Amino acid sequence: MSKEIGITVKKNEDFSEWYTQVVIKAHLTDYAPVKGLIVLRPYGYSIWEFLKSSIDQKLKKTGHENGFLPVLIPESLLSKETTHFAGFTPEVFWVTHSGDTEIGDRLALRPTSETLAYSMYSKWIKSWRDLPLKINFWNSALRAEIKSTKPFLRTSEFLWQEGHTVHATQEEAEEEVMTILDIYRKTVEEELAIPVIIGKKSEKEKFVGAVYTTTMESIMPDGKALQMGTSHFLGQNFSIPFDVKFLDKQNVETFAWQTSWGVSWRLIGALIMVHGDDKGLVLPPRVAPIQAVIVPIYSSQSDKEAVLKKANEIKEILTKRDFRIHVDLRDEFTPGYKFNDWEMKGVPLRIEIGPKDLTKNKMVLVRRDTLKKSDLSFDSAEDGIIKILNEIQEDLFEKARKLLSERVKNITELSQFKKEIENGMCLNSPWCGDQKCEEIVKEETGADIRVIPFDAERSNMSCVVCGKPSKTNAMFARGY
Amino acid sequence: MSKEIGITVKKNEDFSEWYTQVVIKAHLTDYAPVKGLIVLRPYGYSIWEFLKSSIDQKLKKTGHENGFLPVLIPESLLSKETTHFAGFTPEVFWVTHSGDTEIGDRLALRPTSETLAYSMYSKWIKSWRDLPLKINFWNSALRAEIKSTKPFLRTSEFLWQEGHTVHATQEEAEEEVMTILDIYRKTVEEELAIPVIIGKKSEKEKFVGAVYTTTMESIMPDGKALQMGTSHFLGQNFSIPFDVKFLDKQNVETFAWQTSWGVSWRLIGALIMVHGDDKGLVLPPRVAPIQAVIVPIYSSQSDKEAVLKKANEIKEILTKRDFRIHVDLRDEFTPGYKFNDWEMKGVPLRIEIGPKDLTKNKMVLVRRDTLKKSDLSFDSAEDGIIKILNEIQEDLFEKARKLLSERVKNITELSQFKKEIENGMCLNSPWCGDQKCEEIVKEETGADIRVIPFDAERSNMSCVVCGKPSKTNAMFARGY
Repeated sequence: MSKEIGITVKKNEDFSEWYTQVVIKAHLTDYAPVKGLIVLRPYGYSIWEFLKSSIDQKLKKTGHENGFLPVLIPESLLSKETTHFAGFTPEVFWVTHSGDTEIGDRLALRPTSETLAYSMYSKWIKSWRDLPLKINFWNSALRAEIKSTKPFLRTSEFLWQEGHTVHATQEEAEEEVMTILDIYRKTVEEELAIPVIIGKKSEKEKFVGAVYTTTMESIMPDGKALQMGTSHFLGQNFSIPFDVKFLDKQNVETFAWQTSWGVSWRLIGALIMVHGDDKGLVLPPRVAPIQAVIVPIYSSQSDKEAVLKKANEIKEILTKRDFRIHVDLRDEFTPGYKFNDWEMKGVPLRIEIGPKDLTKNKMVLVRRDTLKKSDLSFDSAEDGIIKILNEIQEDLFEKARKLLSERVKNITELSQFKKEIENGMCLNSPWCGDQKCEEIVKEETGADIRVIPFDAERSNMSCVVCGKPSKTNAMFARGY
Repeated sequence: MSKEIGITVKKNEDFSEWYTQVVIKAHLTDYAPVKGLIVLRPYGYSIWEFLKSSIDQKLKKTGHENGFLPVLIPESLLSKETTHFAGFTPEVFWVTHSGDTEIGDRLALRPTSETLAYSMYSKWIKSWRDLPLKINFWNSALRAEIKSTKPFLRTSEFLWQEGHTVHATQEEAEEEVMTILDIYRKTVEEELAIPVIIGKKSEKEKFVGAVYTTTMESIMPDGKALQMGTSHFLGQNFSIPFDVKFLDKQNVETFAWQTSWGVSWRLIGALIMVHGDDKGLVLPPRVAPIQAVIVPIYSSQSDKEAVLKKANEIKEILTKRDFRIHVDLRDEFTPGYKFNDWEMKGVPLRIEIGPKDLTKNKMVLVRRDTLKKSDLSFDSAEDGIIKILNEIQEDLFEKARKLLSERVKNITELSQFKKEIENGMCLNSPWCGDQKCEEIVKEETGADIRVIPFDAERSNMSCVVCGKPSKTNAMFARGY
C-alpha cells in the first residue's frame, strides 16, 4: 500500500493527525463544502445503523415510540425557557428568508428539541390516561461550532437521538432517567466494547434547564475525557413554562415531570480513538459492517476456481448464521494490498485461503486486534469463526477496561493533582461541592469535573482544592 | 364516542375537511408552530417506519448503501447547475446567521441534494473500480410552500429518501432508473395496497436538470392525480458541471452517467385518501402499527380474568408469528368507545372476546374495511386470523384497483375531454407531443400530463388538443 493510501503517522506520536487520517482514509466520512460539516460515507453510516438499531430495539422494548419533529423552531418558542435559550443562543443557525421573502419571527435550526416537543406535548396531554408519554426522535441537531471542528466529535451538524418523556410523578421520571442511562451504558459496553463511568454531572456542568444530568464518560487514549451520552431529569422546569399539565385521577390539574436524553455519532469517534492502532481502524465485531473478509489467494485460473468455491462456501455458512462476511474478488489488487486495505478499515477478522490451504483442508485466520495468525480447519469453520469473533469482542473490551483503569488515579493533594492532569490522567479526588473550587481547577489546569460517579467515595476527606471537608469524590479531567 | 372525538364529515361530502380530521384525530400528525410544518406522532411515524424498512431492504438487496449529507448547502454550490437552481430557488430557506455572525456565502436548507452529493462524488470517484456508486439518503427536504399546505401532501419540510447513483455507462444508469421505479411500484402496491400507473413524465413536467423522469402516479378519490415517486435519468447533465468523471479500463477520462430518485411521506397521504372511510383511517395490515386489536368484554371480575387470559393467549400465539396485536386493557372506557376509537385509527381487524364467546369456544372478528362480523373458533385462531389479515390486504388492493380503473377514461375529443376533467376523471388521450398543447390544456382545464404510461397506445391518432397526428397517448388529470 502506498504511503498516500495508508496511515502515515503513529497513534501515540500525533494523535490528532492520526485520528483525522483514519476517519478519512478508512472511508468513514469526508468534509462537506461548509466548514465544520461532514458527510457520512456508507462505511461510516453503516456503523451508525448498527448502533441505532441496537438502541432503537432497547427503547422499543421499554415502551418508547419514535416520532418526527421539524428542524425549524421559531425564535419566540426557543426563547421561552430563558436559561435554556441563553445556553444555546451563541451557536444557533438562523433562517431569515424563504425564497426572497423575509421571515418575521426568524427560525432557528434545532439545537435540541425540548421547546418544540413540549409545545406539542402540552396540546396532546390532557389527563393521567395520556401518561407516560415516551417519544424518541432520530434526527440531527445543529450547533454552529466556533472552535476547531473534528469529525464525529465536534461538528456543526450531528446525527443523534433525542428522547423526551413525560410522567405523572417525580419518582417515575427519575426512574426513566436511570433506565435510559442503563440502556446507553449497555449499548456502549456491549456493542462498542468501550467501558464507561456513570454518574451525575456537577451543577456547573449539567444540561441548561435540567434539575440534574446523569452522564456516562470514558477516557480517550490522549487522556481527555469524552462525554458519551447524557440523561436529564428536567423536573417541572419545562412543564411549567410550556404548560405540560394533566388532570390526575382525583381530577386535579398537575404539572407533569419530564426527562430528556441523547447520544450522538460522537460514539463513533470514541470507537475510533479507543480501539484504533497505527494501521488504522479496529472495529469490534458487533458493529463492524464487515465482520470477516475472505481474501482468496491464487495465481492460476484453476487455483482461482477452487479457492473461490471454498471461499463462497465459508461465506454461505456464516451468512446463514447472520454474520456479515465479504469475499474480496478484486482481481486488480494483490493479496498484500488487500490485507493492508482491510486492516486500515478495521475488519475484525481476515480469512486467507490459498491452494496450499486447500490441500491441508484449512484456512488462515488473522485477528485485526492482535494481528495474530492461526489455522482453522474447514470442518470447524462455522463454530471456529464465531468463537474467534466473540473472543475479539471480549478482548477489545478487556483491553479498553484495563486502559481506562490505568488512566484513573486517586489523588488527594493539589500539586500532585496538577502534575497528573498534565500527564493526561483522570483524577478521582475529594471535592467540597463548591463551584468556586471547580472554577479554580478549570482556570489553573483546564480540567472539569466530568462525572460524580454513582459509586463515588462519600467519606469525609479534604477537598483537593480548598482543603475543606469533602462532600464526595469527583472525576476531574480535561475533556473533548 | 363524542362528536368532537370522531370524524364529523363524510368523505364524499367534504373530502378536504375529512382528510384533515382523519390525520389529526387518528393521531398521525399535528401542526407544528411554524405554518406549513407538521410533526409526526408515534402512530403516524410507525407507518413511516414500516414503509422505510420495506424500501430499505429492497435497496440493500440491490446493492445500495445508505449515507448522510448535511442539511446546509452553500448558495454557490446550489447554483452551479443553473436550470436546477432556478427550479428550486423560490422555495429555498436561507440561513444567513450563526449566532450573531453573518454568513458570507449564505446557506440553503437542502431542497434536494444533487449538488451536494455530486460535489462529494467527484472527490471519491477516480477510476472504473469506484463504480457503480449507489448511495441512498434517508433524510428530510425543505421547500417553503407558498400555496396552502396539507399534512403529508404539501408541507415545507417532508421526510423522504433520495438516492443518487453513478455509473460507467448510460445503459447501466438507465437500467438503474427502472430497477428503482420497480422497487417503488412493488412497495406501494404490495405494502400500501395502492395500484399505480408507471411511465415517463413529459418534458415540461420532468425533474429540473434530468434528461428524463420516470414516475408512478395514482388517482385519489377526489379525481386528482398524485405523484407517488419519481426516478430520474440525469445523463451527464450533472456529471459535467460537477466534474464527476472516472478513468475507464482503457485509462481514458470519461464523465459518468447518473440517476436520482425519491419517495416521501406523501405515500402516507395517499394511503389515507385511498382507503379511508367515514369512520376514519383504514390501514392495510402490512403497514398497520397494530394489525389486530383485541377488545375484551366483561362486567364481573371473574369474567374479566377469564376473558383477559384468553385474550393474552391469542395475542401470544400471533406475536410469535411476528404479527402486531394489541389488547385494549383500558378500564376507563366502554367496549363501544373502544370500537369507535380503533375504527377511527384504522386497525385492520377487531377481535371481541366476552364471557359468552368463552362458553362457545369462539371469538368475534370484525374487519375494518367491510365492517363485516364473523365468528372464529379459538382452535383455529392462528391460521384464521392470519388468513383474514391477508384477505384484507388483497381486498383493499382489489377495491383500489377497481376505483382506479373507473377513474381512467379513454377520450379522443376535446369538448368531452374538458367535461370529463370537470367530472374528476383521469383521461387517457392521444397527444402530438407538443408542449403547446400541454399548456393549452393546463390553461383551459387545470390538468397536466401526469404520466405517459410505458404501455401507452402509440398508434397514430389525432392529438386531443390540436388534431395533428399523435405520437403517443398520455394521462391527463388535475394533480396535487
